[in-house]
Amino acid sequence: MPTILGQNQYGKAENRVVKITRDGATHHIKDLNVSVALSGAMEEVHYSGSNANVLPTDTTKNTVFAFAKEHGIESAEQFGIHLARHFVTSQEPIHRARIRIEEYAWERIETSGAHSGAAGADEARHSFVRKGQETRLTQITYDGERWEVVSGLKDLTVMNSTDSEFWGYIKDKYTTLKEAYDRILATSVAARWRFGWTDDEQPVPDWEQSYEQVRKHMLQAFAETYSLSLQQTLYQMGARVIDHRDEIDEIRFSLPNSHHFLVDMEPFGLKNDTADGAVYIAADRPYGLIEGTVLRDGCEARIPVDLTNL
Amino acid sequence: MPTILGQNQYGKAENRVVKITRDGATHHIKDLNVSVALSGAMEEVHYSGSNANVLPTDTTKNTVFAFAKEHGIESAEQFGIHLARHFVTSQEPIHRARIRIEEYAWERIETSGAHSGAAGADEARHSFVRKGQETRLTQITYDGERWEVVSGLKDLTVMNSTDSEFWGYIKDKYTTLKEAYDRILATSVAARWRFGWTDDEQPVPDWEQSYEQVRKHMLQAFAETYSLSLQQTLYQMGARVIDHRDEIDEIRFSLPNSHHFLVDMEPFGLKNDTADGAVYIAADRPYGLIEGTVLRDGCEARIPVDLTNL
Amino acid sequence: MPTILGQNQYGKAENRVVKITRDGATHHIKDLNVSVALSGAMEEVHYSGSNANVLPTDTTKNTVFAFAKEHGIESAEQFGIHLARHFVTSQEPIHRARIRIEEYAWERIETSGAHSGAAGADEARHSFVRKGQETRLTQITYDGERWEVVSGLKDLTVMNSTDSEFWGYIKDKYTTLKEAYDRILATSVAARWRFGWTDDEQPVPDWEQSYEQVRKHMLQAFAETYSLSLQQTLYQMGARVIDHRDEIDEIRFSLPNSHHFLVDMEPFGLKNDTADGAVYIAADRPYGLIEGTVLRDGCEARIPVDLTNL
Amino acid sequence: MPTILGQNQYGKAENRVVKITRDGATHHIKDLNVSVALSGAMEEVHYSGSNANVLPTDTTKNTVFAFAKEHGIESAEQFGIHLARHFVTSQEPIHRARIRIEEYAWERIETSGAHSGAAGADEARHSFVRKGQETRLTQITYDGERWEVVSGLKDLTVMNSTDSEFWGYIKDKYTTLKEAYDRILATSVAARWRFGWTDDEQPVPDWEQSYEQVRKHMLQAFAETYSLSLQQTLYQMGARVIDHRDEIDEIRFSLPNSHHFLVDMEPFGLKNDTADGAVYIAADRPYGLIEGTVLRDGCEARIPVDLTNL
Repeated sequence: MPTILGQNQYGKAENRVVKITRDGATHHIKDLNVSVALSGAMEEVHYSGSNANVLPTDTTKNTVFAFAKEHGIESAEQFGIHLARHFVTSQEPIHRARIRIEEYAWERIETSGAHSGAAGADEARHSFVRKGQETRLTQITYDGERWEVVSGLKDLTVMNSTDSEFWGYIKDKYTTLKEAYDRILATSVAARWRFGWTDDEQPVPDWEQSYEQVRKHMLQAFAETYSLSLQQTLYQMGARVIDHRDEIDEIRFSLPNSHHFLVDMEPFGLKNDTADGAVYIAADRPYGLIEGTVLRDGCEARIPVDLTNL
Repeated sequence: MPTILGQNQYGKAENRVVKITRDGATHHIKDLNVSVALSGAMEEVHYSGSNANVLPTDTTKNTVFAFAKEHGIESAEQFGIHLARHFVTSQEPIHRARIRIEEYAWERIETSGAHSGAAGADEARHSFVRKGQETRLTQITYDGERWEVVSGLKDLTVMNSTDSEFWGYIKDKYTTLKEAYDRILATSVAARWRFGWTDDEQPVPDWEQSYEQVRKHMLQAFAETYSLSLQQTLYQMGARVIDHRDEIDEIRFSLPNSHHFLVDMEPFGLKNDTADGAVYIAADRPYGLIEGTVLRDGCEARIPVDLTNL
Repeated sequence: MPTILGQNQYGKAENRVVKITRDGATHHIKDLNVSVALSGAMEEVHYSGSNANVLPTDTTKNTVFAFAKEHGIESAEQFGIHLARHFVTSQEPIHRARIRIEEYAWERIETSGAHSGAAGADEARHSFVRKGQETRLTQITYDGERWEVVSGLKDLTVMNSTDSEFWGYIKDKYTTLKEAYDRILATSVAARWRFGWTDDEQPVPDWEQSYEQVRKHMLQAFAETYSLSLQQTLYQMGARVIDHRDEIDEIRFSLPNSHHFLVDMEPFGLKNDTADGAVYIAADRPYGLIEGTVLRDGCEARIPVDLTNL
Repeated sequence: MPTILGQNQYGKAENRVVKITRDGATHHIKDLNVSVALSGAMEEVHYSGSNANVLPTDTTKNTVFAFAKEHGIESAEQFGIHLARHFVTSQEPIHRARIRIEEYAWERIETSGAHSGAAGADEARHSFVRKGQETRLTQITYDGERWEVVSGLKDLTVMNSTDSEFWGYIKDKYTTLKEAYDRILATSVAARWRFGWTDDEQPVPDWEQSYEQVRKHMLQAFAETYSLSLQQTLYQMGARVIDHRDEIDEIRFSLPNSHHFLVDMEPFGLKNDTADGAVYIAADRPYGLIEGTVLRDGCEARIPVDLTNL
């Protein structure tokens, strides 16, 4: 046979599970999008179509919803760990499970003071508005022995309206860009960070606190770096996370340079200087794309280089 | 000639204008997406291709950016009024202008206390994170005499995790739905509201305050209505706005019923009761779609019925 | 009561119904996305939450699928007519129904000659590839007496690589555009056309043939018009349809001017003339947007002006 | 220093280049979306912000457009090879270039016979309609010595309306799925295939012909496989390509199982059997996701496992 089967995986993607927890009249939401990918002894289903080793993707879907009820959702990471362990340990042909989760944040709606007299001040205990901003991410991989947890976020859009320069670069025959000494630096942060935790014997990180802290450090590093290049900002964001969060060994960013071009107003007889508060055109395509990994010294890089689609 | 020209309009759509205002080291952002549509004596450009009456769409684009510099952007509504007046009064063949604007909100990044010693506590004065949540909208129409201002928002996603029922409806031979006495009510609010202001002689509303107040009243009405149908909630949201905001005569909503179905866990031997905190599947399509207008008594309905694309 | 209810409608949107018809081993697909909007005596559901007059949106969904089985899908228009008539005539409180349908086209996969020996040359009788290109649209409205059928399409992307000019326009102080004597003209056609058919007594148009012919005439008019402005092309496209298709009284277009800018290569010492075959940058935003209606003389304009979202 | 820099790359993404080639009145289009990613001696720009080794992303953009003019676009692959070679060989600090290209296909508009008298039968020589269907992809990677060319496609939507079964799978306590003996099998093909060509000394494949043939074999294998699982179909599609195309060593697929569920019509007193031509609901989420690699025996797997975003 001239062809052989390589890496393969299957499962149900994008299970939209919402779990409400009631603490009296006060409710809490967990709102996840869970994708399951399993692999193992799957040669026959590819070669002959025999499904004898195949747990249906429909069953993996049912398991996601049943586990949300049976075990609750403490955090996206903890929920993914439950699921991955279940698939690998309960079915002999399944040797490896990868659970990917997106989480959408909600915040409580503020109620009117006037209303609290009639229906009680607890109205907003079960009314929510979706927070917008970034989507939280995690990916749990388990092969029966070793855990890999890579968490992250996407679509966190940030802007510095000054404290960014770009000059001193290579000029070749195709270079027309003028050097900039005061520009807008804007990006939509996509980041993934890998935890050092790999073994059930190790103490488990506080996943919720870790996420909030990583997000905070990234935002602060973005805001507080006087930037000579987006690469410099990227590195500062990564280093700040590695320096402050012992539980994280590696972080990778994919940062589009969301160009805001100063509009040339000379043809209209107007000045448009940055120092006076300028007008910019926010461009769509093309955009610079800066990607890079920051590692704890001595740690291995394991996050895939391509966060974007091939 | 058997065919004739009907209503027509043209202009540059989706001009992404960003204006930074500097107040010392403290910066402010206005981030808009501005679309221009002009109409008037445009028969010839359709019949013969003569552009003698056509102000190029490229010029309308330039005007948007130049006006942001010349006049600043006090509010989306005020900016649209400046633009509409300019096009109608400066070019004789242009009889009517419609300016549509989307506005994206930003909030300041919180800085680290530790950092303020070194670089000053003012770092976050020019660092921002996009707020997410809803997109603010406005549409300004001017024909040289009369103004129409319709503002609004889209993509404001809200959820009540209880206090929603649905029963007592018509049952025909195609009805299989079971009545619900405790369900999730979730939607993504799209709304448009029309101001009573139509004339330069009238006092101009405070556009920024009005937006914040309308948004607040809609959210509170959503949270505080014990709902027997999404239509009831829609009406309460609209009535609350009309009751509290004298400057607004009419409001229209397009509210998808974002279904969260209780997962049937009987096959797994599990109970999934709402009272205990239940697990739901968030569905995509199909979805209920509830649309309606609420009017101040005596006012004419002028907001188009179809906020969605035909 | 200071507020009153205005126009309102409700129903299930985006029912994705696929009907396979088997003619022996040869199968046929109808692949639709059907949205139902009903209106009538719906005051109480808004004011008090009583659902006594409400046929649930879930029931409207069931009806769509049941009708696909009971009546088949001869054409999107015919299917919409069946549905609209049913809702208005079967439930007293429902006075008006609007059915919107998107249709996705499929074509047969070509089979290999080699294979036909083994499994028969009829393999491709039930294997399809989605055609891509435009999405076909229709909207059926019925109030118990009068029909309105507006069909259309969206996302039909076309380009003329020459035979387009743009000059002789108004120049004001914000005009910087240079006149063009040989440019690319590209757009993504969105069109809606209204049929003269309004009454069950009139002969019913051949909906399938009509669609194919309208599409053909629009494409040919686009290709065969030497264009001095996109407005001129729009009018020619509309006039060609009205001239050739007696069943259609009115057509409206929304045509983005998908700018392809000639790249300035002077800084690189290169010429980039259109006559030699040039290189263009395809821009995203902003874009010109040209909208207009072409009418059969003597007919009333009834297609809404705004095909885009407010 | 506790943190170090890992893999990094940068460049301009999504350069939308359109090249018209004129052969008298007959024009040809190449319509590409080109993304550049460069890496090399980039430590300093991350650590200190020095751009001394940085060729600006703006320059990489200019180079894409200039090369389209200077060298033309024979094929996406050939164009990517030109660009990658240029970046790696012309700038000492750049050690590796990765060029990703999306290509959009166009076909000629059919003209009316009537028109050919006036303007000539050659009208359609420069009028095009975008083909829709799949987007062609390629990725060229070059490190100064070795080439890697991975081509592919995405969004090729296909359906078999019969000849698909699914049964004989594992049943656990969460399994509720019923076995199916006649179901719809539909997917949206995403595929990437790697060429054996790695060295300038080797004969270069005919990139255009290769693409057409790979696409044809994939479609035919999809249509001609009587399927007991989507995995089996995936393997047949891959094996058919490897068997017929010597230039390709490896192919990977990501195939969503686009569920078409048979609608239960028993509550309406209707039968909905597949044999009679049934009605299905096309579901969105969740969906099965089947991914796998097929290799030429003896070849190494080099296409990344994750074609989807992390």
